[in-house]
Amino acid sequence: MAEPDIFYILGNRVRRDLLSHLTCTECYFSFLSSKVSVSSTAVAKHLKIMEREGILKSYEREGPFIGPARKYYDIAIAKTYVVTITPNVFWYRGIDLGEEPVKEIHIKLPEKEPKKLEEMILTFLTLSDELEKVLKALQSIESRRDRLMAMIKDTYLKEIGDMTQLAILHYVLLNGSATVEELSDRLNLKEREVLQKASELDRFVPLRIKDSIITIDNERLRAKLGGGNAGED
Amino acid sequence: MAEPDIFYILGNRVRRDLLSHLTCTECYFSFLSSKVSVSSTAVAKHLKIMEREGILKSYEREGPFIGPARKYYDIAIAKTYVVTITPNVFWYRGIDLGEEPVKEIHIKLPEKEPKKLEEMILTFLTLSDELEKVLKALQSIESRRDRLMAMIKDTYLKEIGDMTQLAILHYVLLNGSATVEELSDRLNLKEREVLQKASELDRFVPLRIKDSIITIDNERLRAKLGGGNAGED
Repeated sequence: MAEPDIFYILGNRVRRDLLSHLTCTECYFSFLSSKVSVSSTAVAKHLKIMEREGILKSYEREGPFIGPARKYYDIAIAKTYVVTITPNVFWYRGIDLGEEPVKEIHIKLPEKEPKKLEEMILTFLTLSDELEKVLKALQSIESRRDRLMAMIKDTYLKEIGDMTQLAILHYVLLNGSATVEELSDRLNLKEREVLQKASELDRFVPLRIKDSIITIDNERLRAKLGGGNAGED
Repeated sequence: MAEPDIFYILGNRVRRDLLSHLTCTECYFSFLSSKVSVSSTAVAKHLKIMEREGILKSYEREGPFIGPARKYYDIAIAKTYVVTITPNVFWYRGIDLGEEPVKEIHIKLPEKEPKKLEEMILTFLTLSDELEKVLKALQSIESRRDRLMAMIKDTYLKEIGDMTQLAILHYVLLNGSATVEELSDRLNLKEREVLQKASELDRFVPLRIKDSIITIDNERLRAKLGGGNAGED
């Protein structure tokens, strides 16, 4: 069993919110502090705890204006954690990302229902082998998504350069969809301003906005690529 | 995002140890208290927190001897949690177990490396779809392992009836292997007693014991079933 301190870190709503902002953009202290609803003393404490546990690292850099250097924070790990808890089974594991061990995987569950103790145990072992394959697939997919998201952030900032548009794109990609209300809370913008930013984003990444729910418009995105089928092969 | 209180619960070593014991056998308060290295006041507090959060439920039942009813604890949830945290990606999800939505699954990662922003986004969406398939596979496997482990526990207690042997089997099945030292810590037995219990277990479930590491002996187990191949189809 591996590195359980992550659960302690994740066991607090403010820390989860801070981590969520940190995955989207470079963050300095007062920016982070303005994004969550607790005192700056509390934010400082949470950041310190996460740095101590090796989840964050910090560095100082000059801000865009004259004045003291700003303290920036970055997430220092790349992992996927899996936990199962049932009346009969409890285990957890931390999987290091960065490697993509499989390109293709085939999972098949045993069909027979075992009757004897020995059969039950063999079936359990077979399922555990399939579980290992699933964890390898998870590792590959998440490593790849991490790498891609880094490219998307980088490209968006270089080519378009708008942080708020990128924040909307990042949130919608990670969650599959977003309500205008969620984004308004998260970005500290009025709903009207969220819709304005979303319509700006839509010029580069086609969106579908319906009943206040924003998703990526797959069809228009494909059309934009001129019938190319990237990501489909 | 779903049910984050589980992280708070898991963020403490004593609570994790208690959960681990609870998945193996019916536990009453003084039994649990004897298995962890903190005061019974602390154990009572942790159990109360886990009950409040809906992770445990308790019930009273007469013990085997004359005296007051004992308070027993059971794990009240059956879930798998997945968390990814990297400099670019942060999400988590709780998956309800009990259903086995897929028997077979085929995962394939896109081969092309995207060049343009639109291609990157399409590839990210494709990977997110594959991720959903992996999570379905995880749900099926863990639901099935939970169900099987319940059968194994039940069958072992009915047919053989030794709690300590079962505790060794449970630990080895969940972890793939166990050292004699680990089991000695966990079961509060001398290492010599662990080896004695393992050799008793071996009569029913063939084990391989080498360099103080205990694993299931797959070959002898298969041989015992008379060349049957349960769990292999």
